[in-house]
Amino acid sequence: MSEKKIILTGDRPTGPLHLGHFVGSLQNRVKLQSTYKQFVMIADQQALTDNADNPQKIIDAIFQVLLDYLSVGIDPKQTTIFAQSGVPQISELAFYYLNLVTVARLSRNPTIKDEIRQRGFEESIPAGFLVYPVHQAADITVVNANLVPVGADQLPIIEQTNEIIRSFNRIYGPVFNEVEALIPEKCDRLMGTNGLEKMSKSLGNAIYLSDDADTVQKKVMGMYTDPNHLRASDPGKVEGNPVFVYLDVFGTDAQKIQEMKDHYTRGGLGDVVVKKYLNEVLQTFLEPIRARRKEFVGNQDYLRTLLQQGTSETRAIGEQTIKKVKTAIGLTYI
Amino acid sequence: MSEKKIILTGDRPTGPLHLGHFVGSLQNRVKLQSTYKQFVMIADQQALTDNADNPQKIIDAIFQVLLDYLSVGIDPKQTTIFAQSGVPQISELAFYYLNLVTVARLSRNPTIKDEIRQRGFEESIPAGFLVYPVHQAADITVVNANLVPVGADQLPIIEQTNEIIRSFNRIYGPVFNEVEALIPEKCDRLMGTNGLEKMSKSLGNAIYLSDDADTVQKKVMGMYTDPNHLRASDPGKVEGNPVFVYLDVFGTDAQKIQEMKDHYTRGGLGDVVVKKYLNEVLQTFLEPIRARRKEFVGNQDYLRTLLQQGTSETRAIGEQTIKKVKTAIGLTYI
Repeated sequence: MSEKKIILTGDRPTGPLHLGHFVGSLQNRVKLQSTYKQFVMIADQQALTDNADNPQKIIDAIFQVLLDYLSVGIDPKQTTIFAQSGVPQISELAFYYLNLVTVARLSRNPTIKDEIRQRGFEESIPAGFLVYPVHQAADITVVNANLVPVGADQLPIIEQTNEIIRSFNRIYGPVFNEVEALIPEKCDRLMGTNGLEKMSKSLGNAIYLSDDADTVQKKVMGMYTDPNHLRASDPGKVEGNPVFVYLDVFGTDAQKIQEMKDHYTRGGLGDVVVKKYLNEVLQTFLEPIRARRKEFVGNQDYLRTLLQQGTSETRAIGEQTIKKVKTAIGLTYI
Repeated sequence: MSEKKIILTGDRPTGPLHLGHFVGSLQNRVKLQSTYKQFVMIADQQALTDNADNPQKIIDAIFQVLLDYLSVGIDPKQTTIFAQSGVPQISELAFYYLNLVTVARLSRNPTIKDEIRQRGFEESIPAGFLVYPVHQAADITVVNANLVPVGADQLPIIEQTNEIIRSFNRIYGPVFNEVEALIPEKCDRLMGTNGLEKMSKSLGNAIYLSDDADTVQKKVMGMYTDPNHLRASDPGKVEGNPVFVYLDVFGTDAQKIQEMKDHYTRGGLGDVVVKKYLNEVLQTFLEPIRARRKEFVGNQDYLRTLLQQGTSETRAIGEQTIKKVKTAIGLTYI
């Protein structure tokens, strides 16, 4: 086994990844992959919990997401990328964990409560959705992860996982280490192009990592700014103005950005000028990402093999974990 | 594949099997095994749902139950006996099914409602317990069963399984056949020695298939009868009198039993005489069961190999089923 600490992270494949994903997680993964043993899971099985009747959406997204990973610089030599559905030990493990968690506890999970409300499930929550924090505990422990990068709103996942780990260890003996949340230094949530708090596919306010130059330009020129900045000569607000938020995140010339902010604030700088500059900044940012994408796009055999290798590697670890778990419980007769 | 219809049945291994099991299921399995392809599952994983903190109880019971099977004449050449925990495809399948069932639907399941009440879970139902009807649907479909022998009180299992099958087939295409309940001809529930409706380990009113002759005799001589039959000369009741119920079930001399019933009803026949006769009847009934048990008891290697072979066979079928399921959903990239 590697001496490096182990990270488990991943995405539900429901569509291509966008700048919000880059800011919130992808850049972090690229940074962490040399220091840690990193597993990135494409959670196809979990994506089905609320897309059971539309599997094609998930299937289409899997290779989009994989391409996005490679494009931003997640290096399959350093990071193990795997498909959740190819590691059945996760579901097996989850069923042992389900005995250690009460229904009342699951219903109290704030993340689940939020998402139930957001998805309008209310009375008709799929059972798979209610129990997915337990499945996540299995995702995390199947690879013996030490660290899980999460946003502040996802801390309940870590809490639930550690509760399961403590119950398991108390009843069956010490098998698992507790896990820690790894909260990224930078802001973990990027505003949408329309000024809403969160960039999201479903809100229609996303710039995708796979968007071509024209699409990015169109989206940037159509961005929300300060609604009171009607004429170039009017003083404008930079706080909460997504154009400046993006410049802060993706720009490299801090002095120029500060000058533009000052100019905009006192009046005399038009939105179009700022947007044109943001467009330049984003195209520059996206250029190496597009170049790497070109290396892989269309090479379906390579992508498939990569995913299969990562999945096999993870499955082999999963088999070891299940063996430890069954030995601890005493299910050793098979 | 065999042309025979497929049966799935089994037991939660929580202790040795008793006369109630024989009447309710075991005799039926012995009868059915030549006509059908029969799978008998030792549901160790499901037994853990409400025994998570006492796995040793389950582990101890597994080989007791296996011995009971062989002792009553379940023939491993005709019947595939397997341990649920050795077929992880069941849990994998169950997670796909969990997306097709709502929490509200599971909470309405009458069997689950009853058992939650019986076990005093109320507010602290383990999640594994709530979702176990979904796991049962996976038990049944993993071997493509056509028939499931159930008591009338277990019909909700079949209903829930068929709902899942219909949802699955509608969304992903026709993969599974619906299943039918096989309700035994004879009464499926044997009264306890204390006159309570059901023989059960937890009620302390059971005669075990593995009880030795002395134990059986003691239990029979201590049986509940008609509480108003104080003296031999008093008229007695035979209806609801477990001594006569057992004679009807296990006796072979119908004429003699009828004579005793008449005599008891009009008065003049003492309980002790009837119990002595019942003891003879039960010893005769148990004799061949004990003889077969002697062939296997202590031969732990044989028992383990038998269970491993049956489990391997079932796992291979499970792999085929999962392959069909994943192909239907479209998860074919791994």
